[in-house]
Order: sequence, then structure tokens, then C-alpha cells
Amino acid sequence: MTTREENELITRVGPGTPMGNALRRYWMPALLASELPGPDCPPVRVKLLGEELVAFRDTAGRVGLIEEFCPHRLASLFLGRNEEHGLRCVYHGWKFDVAGACVDMPNEPAASSFKDRIHTTAYPVEEKGGVVWAYMGPPEKKPELPDQEWMRAPATHSFVSVTHEFANFVQTVEGGIDTAHSSFLHNNNLSDKTGFRQIATAPRLEVVKTPYGFQYASLRDIGNDDIYLRLYTFVMPFHQMRASQIQASAGEGGGRRAAVPTNAGHMWVPIDDENTLVFNWMYATDPEIPFPEGHVEKAETNLGRGQTGEGRIRHRLRANDWLVDREMQRTENFSGIFGVNSQDLAVQESMGAIVPRWREHLGSTDLAVIAYRGILMDTIKSVQAGNDPPGVDPDTYRKVRASDMVIKRGTDWRQAVAQATVAQI
Amino acid sequence: MTTREENELITRVGPGTPMGNALRRYWMPALLASELPGPDCPPVRVKLLGEELVAFRDTAGRVGLIEEFCPHRLASLFLGRNEEHGLRCVYHGWKFDVAGACVDMPNEPAASSFKDRIHTTAYPVEEKGGVVWAYMGPPEKKPELPDQEWMRAPATHSFVSVTHEFANFVQTVEGGIDTAHSSFLHNNNLSDKTGFRQIATAPRLEVVKTPYGFQYASLRDIGNDDIYLRLYTFVMPFHQMRASQIQASAGEGGGRRAAVPTNAGHMWVPIDDENTLVFNWMYATDPEIPFPEGHVEKAETNLGRGQTGEGRIRHRLRANDWLVDREMQRTENFSGIFGVNSQDLAVQESMGAIVPRWREHLGSTDLAVIAYRGILMDTIKSVQAGNDPPGVDPDTYRKVRASDMVIKRGTDWRQAVAQATVAQI
Amino acid sequence: MTTREENELITRVGPGTPMGNALRRYWMPALLASELPGPDCPPVRVKLLGEELVAFRDTAGRVGLIEEFCPHRLASLFLGRNEEHGLRCVYHGWKFDVAGACVDMPNEPAASSFKDRIHTTAYPVEEKGGVVWAYMGPPEKKPELPDQEWMRAPATHSFVSVTHEFANFVQTVEGGIDTAHSSFLHNNNLSDKTGFRQIATAPRLEVVKTPYGFQYASLRDIGNDDIYLRLYTFVMPFHQMRASQIQASAGEGGGRRAAVPTNAGHMWVPIDDENTLVFNWMYATDPEIPFPEGHVEKAETNLGRGQTGEGRIRHRLRANDWLVDREMQRTENFSGIFGVNSQDLAVQESMGAIVPRWREHLGSTDLAVIAYRGILMDTIKSVQAGNDPPGVDPDTYRKVRASDMVIKRGTDWRQAVAQATVAQI
Repeated sequence: MTTREENELITRVGPGTPMGNALRRYWMPALLASELPGPDCPPVRVKLLGEELVAFRDTAGRVGLIEEFCPHRLASLFLGRNEEHGLRCVYHGWKFDVAGACVDMPNEPAASSFKDRIHTTAYPVEEKGGVVWAYMGPPEKKPELPDQEWMRAPATHSFVSVTHEFANFVQTVEGGIDTAHSSFLHNNNLSDKTGFRQIATAPRLEVVKTPYGFQYASLRDIGNDDIYLRLYTFVMPFHQMRASQIQASAGEGGGRRAAVPTNAGHMWVPIDDENTLVFNWMYATDPEIPFPEGHVEKAETNLGRGQTGEGRIRHRLRANDWLVDREMQRTENFSGIFGVNSQDLAVQESMGAIVPRWREHLGSTDLAVIAYRGILMDTIKSVQAGNDPPGVDPDTYRKVRASDMVIKRGTDWRQAVAQATVAQI
Repeated sequence: MTTREENELITRVGPGTPMGNALRRYWMPALLASELPGPDCPPVRVKLLGEELVAFRDTAGRVGLIEEFCPHRLASLFLGRNEEHGLRCVYHGWKFDVAGACVDMPNEPAASSFKDRIHTTAYPVEEKGGVVWAYMGPPEKKPELPDQEWMRAPATHSFVSVTHEFANFVQTVEGGIDTAHSSFLHNNNLSDKTGFRQIATAPRLEVVKTPYGFQYASLRDIGNDDIYLRLYTFVMPFHQMRASQIQASAGEGGGRRAAVPTNAGHMWVPIDDENTLVFNWMYATDPEIPFPEGHVEKAETNLGRGQTGEGRIRHRLRANDWLVDREMQRTENFSGIFGVNSQDLAVQESMGAIVPRWREHLGSTDLAVIAYRGILMDTIKSVQAGNDPPGVDPDTYRKVRASDMVIKRGTDWRQAVAQATVAQI
Repeated sequence: MTTREENELITRVGPGTPMGNALRRYWMPALLASELPGPDCPPVRVKLLGEELVAFRDTAGRVGLIEEFCPHRLASLFLGRNEEHGLRCVYHGWKFDVAGACVDMPNEPAASSFKDRIHTTAYPVEEKGGVVWAYMGPPEKKPELPDQEWMRAPATHSFVSVTHEFANFVQTVEGGIDTAHSSFLHNNNLSDKTGFRQIATAPRLEVVKTPYGFQYASLRDIGNDDIYLRLYTFVMPFHQMRASQIQASAGEGGGRRAAVPTNAGHMWVPIDDENTLVFNWMYATDPEIPFPEGHVEKAETNLGRGQTGEGRIRHRLRANDWLVDREMQRTENFSGIFGVNSQDLAVQESMGAIVPRWREHLGSTDLAVIAYRGILMDTIKSVQAGNDPPGVDPDTYRKVRASDMVIKRGTDWRQAVAQATVAQI
């Protein structure tokens, strides 16, 4: 049971909050590298952990992430000019470099030393895997940059996109690591009663704690002594990996190997207490099999992400009931909403911005959710006690990938899946 | 004088509030029966007394009204599938019947008894007069279903529609039982100075308390020793009945019998503290004279209800100044707003969501308003003392109808109107 | 350094606040006279210092400014009928004259004296310079009406418009009296590196306190021993005057006399704590040189005021990032926003509705801003002590105008500009 107090504790992320302090010990994905396409391109507003920031790429190609408001009179640097190694405020021309130093102050006499005393908040930034990462915590605690297999995959094999979700990050993570709902919410073919997702709606879950977070297996009995195993990986504080090696298919309770064996996942990054930036990545796990032409666009569209909104914001919103189509819901799919991730967002947002967890009734398929909350609480306490939180050391998860496979009843699944969950890239 | 404290007391309707507790002793109109057109039709969001609910009609045609959020993980059941005798959550497939019992829990093992321990809030529901009624109070206090003549009228004789109003329910009731404003706000023909509404703008009011609420007569001297009497009926907590037996007409201070003698009225149901669901009913009071073809559509349009908005929401909103037409106001009607009920909403919403009654200056035509507030206060106290509130027993008002007529000066109006106010259906 | 407490003190303007009390000692510009174009025209909503009011022009042409809500049942008099020497509520017909007296109460018996006891809040109103002025303070403290040269200029020589700004009035005043930003924010020709605004971006400021507020000179070294002097005038609590006698031009560091020598200015009037009504006035200072045909429209458009929004609200809003055009910002002007005043609004609104001044870092060009805050604090204290605030006596500023000129290095600017700053109209 999550109490009202625990719910507050794990969902509030602003400066000075216990969860906010814990999250500031991790590198935070801030935006796509492609959102700052080239040197001196327009700056971009970024909100992370409740802090209003602006990102820019300078003339040398370095990315800066600084406080949105100019320290002089607090005009927004989002309106600023990105020019010659710095972002210049349009109000009085103060200019800041990526490190936050004030490098020009043209409204003061040339002889003035005022400029040298001005420094704005600037967070360390790195680019990796198509993502701009920021570290917002105590400098002396800065860990090594995250390193997951998808970040190392070549451009021919990988893709990452980003979506805005109107809900607290814990809620979105919980939606992601909850594997049981896929048989319902993501049942996109009501007429197919034979796919193994349809056959076994009550998976058995097993959660295995790890130094970086946990792995969780979902085991579905699909007949003929076959068991469909999905092994997910969760890296603290908000990274999920899942596999699509096997494709569900109609017929004798089995599946077949996917044309493009893939790992995919999300990072659910707190914008503030009530909004989350969802990063969606995917990569081809076989170094010999890159994404074919058009694969990414098709996948994004099928997941309800491509071409379905304005920038990061989807067309499907609470205000329009997520455009639920009751006829589609009656005859085609379970939800009446097109696209797996659109379905996820609709359900998660439908709970309200911060779900009142003390009113829940959790069951046996909520094991991963329960495990996650426990780790969040432990992490808060651990950081308060002066220790490092789990998941900050890439060595603990660098060689991990997710996997799914069909195994025979009686097999030890841990042993069966061991080889398949070692990164190859 | 209504104090600031009394104003709070009578306007707050949420769970646990004194007014909310009193209102929960009555059957609440929740939505139109036609909004749930058939078995297994799409569910509908309902908000009543500040509680978020969802209504659905099951395979057997029974209506359920249950809490909006699934007790499992609190996803909205508005997104649910209405299928085979229950509403199923799209997240993990939990299914609830109209009584709130969890009748299927497919994400748990078949042997699990978890399902049997899960029950969601479900309010007793009845259908009558084209309206779905809900009882949200203590089960042992549930009264008999309301019974007014309009609810018994055949389909050929009756009609009911529904409108959203952006104001507290007390304000909307007060607008409805205030008869004096019709000579002003609803003067829709500025050039007609002779109609008896125009002649006598200061009606004399008399309020007669009854076991179910009160009756109030407005008496207008229309010349030639004639007095135009309108006798309204108010049934607690928010039912108004009024008559249109007589039509106002230009000329020698009189009227003529309406082509279709009608009673009409409203029910002003609190959605929450700042919003009201307005039910508009009308019925032909003469069993021999049904509504002629097109009568209802014409009446609804003339009242500013038909074809003037999107669903329950009107086009005329505070945000667009209720589309007041200053040229129309100068030359055609008093308000510059088309439609009697559009005029009512505009004026009531213009006071703000909850009018600060302690700033009012009430006069002799505000008698009904004052009587209503007194009854609300008495009702709150009565319920707090463990007694039944007025208006819960249909026997006290079942045979009542409203009436209007022209009487001669010196006549005892109570005697004159007695026969005409006995229900015939 | 402005503290958090001082920031609260100077920005809150509602009834009973220290700043609100001080502001209520001045005549407040409420709306344009032309917004009430003729006798019995439609009433207009006015919000001033957080108070909701309605303005109307009666049959005799007099302007009334009364509380928005009818004292009877608090319906909005914005919906009222402006007819025969009074504004009549559409609800029950109560009618009020420009002095706030209830002059008709048709829903009460003719013999009733209730009407005589009803009076609504009505503020003294005067028209001058195309503006309707209101006095909202203690009657016995009402000062003489403001008198500035632009208010005396004939119609051929003057113009005034009005704009809504989504920010606190102190912020908008500070943007107006800050002269240093014009070299940056208002640099509308990036390719012109020779205009004297471009040459000297760090002006020297001098502030001279006066009985009505202060004058502030900005002195820019433009080469050849020439100094470009702009002398601004600030009259408490929110009046700014500036001159355009000299036009910036490319070339040898000088300027030339403007075709139409002009003074222009703003009045920044608090609507409430987070919104400001900006009056923009201009007039031709030479009695022999009126505005030529089309001058006003061209000037308004160039400043980003004409034809750029809906009524008082601009198209450029926070919600659309003030339509900043990054390509324009890269190649044409400093801000990427068209129009000097659009640039001002964007920057001022970008700080948030009330800028957190305690986080600023003020420099040498912020002298006028600092002076203004000091006077605001002094004024609050002075009014609290029972004294008159500065700027209420028109004799102290009646003959003042602003000026700009080019002077030689070593000249005493006060003496040089003395003659040019005496009003001629």
C-alpha cells in the first residue's frame, strides 16, 4: 500500500524535494540532439525537474543548458540571439557562453569589471545516442555518462523520438513497466483470439533485483508446453528496455522470429510534477540487420507517435477525450484509440496528473510496479544518508539487453535467457 | 441578509459538506435516458455533487452509475468497454456490473479470489420521465422515486432537454424562481407596450409554504379590474414548475388561452460548486391536446436551447460576452440576447460562479428567493438533526401542477386557482 | 537590491494594499474617450487597480464609471441598457446615473422609497486629451486633473491608442524608462553599423529628481566630439515622455532634424497585479507642423501597434512565443520581432507576470529603474504618513516636454537642453 505521504514523496521533483535531490544525482535526458541541429541555431526552451532552462548550440557546436532568465533583469534568454560562441539576451545584449560565464556586457562601459562577476546557472551537458544529457546535481557527485547498447548502435540501426505526456513521471514509468496491460490495452485485433498475447492474459511475473534496478520476466503459458517469456530490464531512475525478437502470430500458440530483431525502450523524464518528457528509442540488435528503408517511420506511426501531433504534443488530449473512437473500440481494437503509445498516454493521463495511489487495489501482476516504488523509496533514503543511488554506474548495466523467447515448460528461464541478454554492440 | 458564512453553507455541495449531505438525501437527475441510447452503448462521464462518475447501460438495458476510476490502478472507466453485462477497464480488463461488483479480472489467475473482494462505488439508479435518476445518500434513507406529472405524461405530450450552466446551483434556482425579471430580461418585443407583462412590471408576490417546498403567486394588475395570476410551484431541492395556459397578448389588458396549454419547468442539479446541469422539461397538460408536429423544436429554439451550442454547452459564453447584440438590444429586445433561457444563463453567469450574496440589496420582489434560502438553511439543520428533509416524499406533491389565469380584482386567488392546479395525468 | 518584500509592496495594487492606496491618490486613465463614441452607446467593461467596473456615456454625453455589478442581485451591468440618462440592469430594470444614484426601480411599487436608499460605487470621471480619467481615491484628496502638453495639442497634432500587456505595471514602467535597451532590443537594422545608436551601446545615464518624479538624460558619445543627448521625463506614477526631434541616421555620427518633431510617451495603468493597460500617445511639438496624412497609421504600424491584434490584445503572445522569427533575428533585426512596442511587450512579458526582482543584477544603466523604485517606496511611505504623493500637482510638470539633441563634448547638457524642454502648446 502506498500512503498519501509516500505518494507525495515519490512524485515531487522540484529543487530541494527528496525525490528531486535523488533524481539530480543522475544524468537527465534533456532534449534530442537534433533539436539543436547546428552551430548558432535557435535556442530551445527546456524544463527539467521543475527548472526553467534554455538550451543552445554554440558556434563550435557545443551545447549549453543555462537558466532561462538573464541574471541582469530576468528577460527570457529563449528570445536570445545565438551568436558567436554565446547566447545573447535581446534586452541589453548580455552574452553567456555554454559554461554560464558572461562573456559580453555591451551596455556597460568597456572598462567595467561588472561582467566578470556575473555567472548564470549552467549545467554540464553531453551528447550521446542522439540525446543531449544534462547533470543538475552536486558537481562533486557527477557520475559517468549513461551507457546503454542503444546509445552505441550506429545510425543505420537506431532511432530516438520524444513525446510530451501530461502526467507525473512515476505514473508513466509504472505504465511502461507494467507488462500485464499489453493483452488488454494493446490488443489491436479483437478478431484474433489465437495470438499468444490473447490466449494468456494473466502472465506470471517474476522480478529480479539488480544493482542498477531490476529485471522482470513475464511468463505466459501459450499451450503445447510452450511458455512465452519476455524479459524486461529497468535501469534507475526511469529507463526501460524491452525486446521484440519474437512476433506474435495467429496459429498454434507460437511465434516467429521478427524480421528485424529489435530492442526498444523509453526514458520518462520529469519536466515538472505533472508533466513528463518521454523519450522513445529503438535499435536493431543484430549488427548484420539494419532497419530497412521506411521501417522507422512505419513503426513510429503504428505506435501512435509519428505525424499525430504538433511537435511533442499529440493530437489526442484529455480535452478531446483522446479522440476515442467507440466504433473502433466495438469492432477493431480494445481501446478505440490508434497506436500503442497513444493508448498508453490516454490511460495514464486519464488517472489525473498525479494518481492517488492510496486508493489503488494492487494484484499479482503489479509486482514490477511495487518493486519500482520500493526502489524509489530506498533511493530517496539512500541519497539522504549520503550514499550513491542505484543505476549511476554504467558498469552495472552496460552489457545488458532485453529479450523475449519461447521456452519449454520446466526450463529454468534465467538460464535459457542468459546468453540472449548480453549486449552485442 | 445572507451572510458570507451562510453563502458558503448553501453553495458547497461536495462530499461531507452540510449542503452536500442534505442534497444526498434526494434522488438526483444525472443525465437524459436518451444519452444512453441502447444496451452496451458508449459510457458517459457524469459529475454530480463534485463526484466524478461514469454512466453506462448494460446488455440487459439496466443503467449503472459508478465511480469514474477503476479501483485497480485508477484508470478512467470512461475509456472503458461496455460489453456483456458490465463495463470493462481498458487497462487490465477488470469488469464491473451496474451494482459495482467486479465480475471479471482476467489479469489474475483463474483461481484467484481477489476479484470477489473488489467492489466499486455504484449508486442506485432509476429511469423515469426520460431521465436517469441517482441516489447518492445513505442506503437506509433512500426515499421513493420522485413523481411529478410531467414524468407521467406520454411521449406525445412531453419533452426534456439538458444544458450546462457555468454557475452554482443556488444561483440558477434563484434565477428560476424569480418571477419579477420576466418583464425586463425576457421582454422580447420592445415596441409592444401593451402586453400585460409590459404594463405591470412590479408584480405583487405571495409565497405559500408547503410540505414539499413552496408555491409562489405573482399578481399583476393588468387593467379593467383584471389581475394576471401566475402560480408557480417549487419542490425541494431544485424543481420548479410553471404554467403557460394563458398567452400574453397586445390589446385590452388580457390574454387568451394558449393553443397548447403547457406546464414547463427546470431541475437545477449541482455538478459541483461552480457548475449546474439544467434539465428543461415541458408537457401538454390537456390529455386531449398533444404537442403538434414541430412544436418542441420550435419551443427549444425560441428558448435559446435548440441548435445553439455544442452538446450541453451553449455558444453563448462569458468568454464571448454571451454574444450580446447591442443593436438588437437597442431596437428589438431588452437584453440583446436571443432566447429566454440564453438570457437567464447570461445574467446568472454574469454574477460570477458563486454570487457574493452578502453584497445584495433585496427588495419586495425577492420574496421567493428569500423563502428558498430560508428553506435551504432549515433543510441543512433538519438533516443535521437526523430528520428527513422536505420534498423527499412524492405524496406531498404528486398531484400538483402549476397554473396561470386572469382573475377579477377582489377574488381570493387561492380559491380561484385551486382546481386548475390539480394534476390530470 | 530590491527584496522579496519590497517587490510585493510595489507590485500589489488592489484595494487596501499600500501601493493601491498610493495609486488611488492619482487620476487614472481608464479608457479612450473614443471607446464611448456617443451618447447612449454600449457600455464598456473597465478593470482598474483590481476593481471591476463598467463605463458608459449617458444621453447628455457625460461619462459614468460605476461598479460592474448591480447592487440588487449583482448581475453585470456590462449587459445593461444605456438609455435616457442612465445605465439600466437587464435583470430587473434598476437604473443608475453617472453619479451612481439609483434613478429608477420599476420592479418595486411606485410608492416605494427603496430606490432612494440605493447608491452604487461611482468614481469621478473627466475627459481630457482623448482619454477618460477616473479618480478612485478619498474624495477629499482629489487633485486637479493631470495636464501635460500632449493633452492640450489639437487633434491635427495628436493621437492616443491603447494596448493590453500581460505583466505587472512596475515591470512595464521599468521597460519604458530603461533607455539602454534601445540599442539592442530596438536595433531594427543589423546591417547598419553606423547609426549613432549602434555606435554607442553603453550610454551614460544621469537622473535628476524633480517634484513630480524625475528627468533622466542618456548621453551617447557618437564621435567627432558629438554627444547624442536624450532627455526623458517621468511623471509619477506612470507617465513617460520622450522626444523624437532628431532622427538616427547612417553616416558621420550625427542625426538630422525629424520631418515632424514629436514627443511621445506612455501611461502604464494597472488593470490588476498581473495586467497593464498601456496608453500610447504622440503629438507634433511644433504648432506649425501637424501630422501629415497617414503619419499616425504608419507610426502605429511601425511600432507594432496598428493592425496587429484583436482590439487591445496583440497577436504576439506568450502562448505563441510572440511569433519570434528566427530568420529575421539572424539577418534583419536584433529581436526577430517586428515593431518597437511588440519587442517591449515580448521582453517584459517573458520575465513572467511579476518579475522576481530579488534575483536581478543591476548595473550602471539601470539608474532610472533604481530611481523609480526608490520613488515608489518613498511614495508609499509618504501616503501612509498622510502626505500627498509626488506628481499630483500639475503645476509641477505642466510646462515640461522631452527633448533630444546633439551637443558638443564639454557642454553643460542641463543648460543646453533647458529651452528645448519648455512646452510650447
